[in-house]
Amino acid sequence: MRQAPRKSTRRAVAKCKDARSASLMIRIDFGAFGLLGPGKIQLMELIAKHGSISAAGKEMGMSYRRAWLLVDEINHIFREPLVLSQIGGAGGGGAQVTEFGHEVIRQYRAIQQAAAEACDAHVRALVASLADKPRAVLEEETR
Amino acid sequence: MRQAPRKSTRRAVAKCKDARSASLMIRIDFGAFGLLGPGKIQLMELIAKHGSISAAGKEMGMSYRRAWLLVDEINHIFREPLVLSQIGGAGGGGAQVTEFGHEVIRQYRAIQQAAAEACDAHVRALVASLADKPRAVLEEETR
Repeated sequence: MRQAPRKSTRRAVAKCKDARSASLMIRIDFGAFGLLGPGKIQLMELIAKHGSISAAGKEMGMSYRRAWLLVDEINHIFREPLVLSQIGGAGGGGAQVTEFGHEVIRQYRAIQQAAAEACDAHVRALVASLADKPRAVLEEETR
Repeated sequence: MRQAPRKSTRRAVAKCKDARSASLMIRIDFGAFGLLGPGKIQLMELIAKHGSISAAGKEMGMSYRRAWLLVDEINHIFREPLVLSQIGGAGGGGAQVTEFGHEVIRQYRAIQQAAAEACDAHVRALVASLADKPRAVLEEETR
């Protein structure tokens, strides 16, 4: 099933095991055009930061090949490219996020913000019903 | 990276290759308590429909073991169980979604609805920038 977390998922929230809160992870499904979710957005943000697909992928723990394939996917969803890359050169060539790419990142972040605000009451209702402790902590204590 | 689609992802939208629209796929991240997304919700809805974890999993193309593990995960996120199952019996025992389980499904569907409404303008802006044709169609035509 596509919605289950992968084994490799590293969640920042795992650092804070007792935090009784929740966040929405939003993926936009454009049908046959593709998917745009937090991973592709983060990859683009890191490409903008590092000026390199390889460095961006590395920071996310993925291979250059995987990062490159994701960029290739991202660039075929929309009419214009979101990331421009340059083959070769020192350090394997550079990459940059286009103005249109930055606009897509802004729209995605706006979607995330609007959804979080609109859903706040429902999310709080679910958080109020969370178990007393996360399962992992429970298992540790009952060993 | 967790956000890329799995190879096994079967998207209903793939049937309609030229549909220029988008939908939000929302996963709620409860940190150490777990994740709740469209797959677990659909699984619960199908358990309610079929009265069986096995039949629900089968309709989603997953093994009984996988469906059972997901139900086990779901049941440890919150204070109360969402699915009750009965071991053995004809057909491997039955299963049902609890009243609390139905309430969680309702909250999730309300979150989905509220997010879709709140994000409509941003999503439309992105849809307006989609490529002329989905990549698969392009590739078929240029063969």
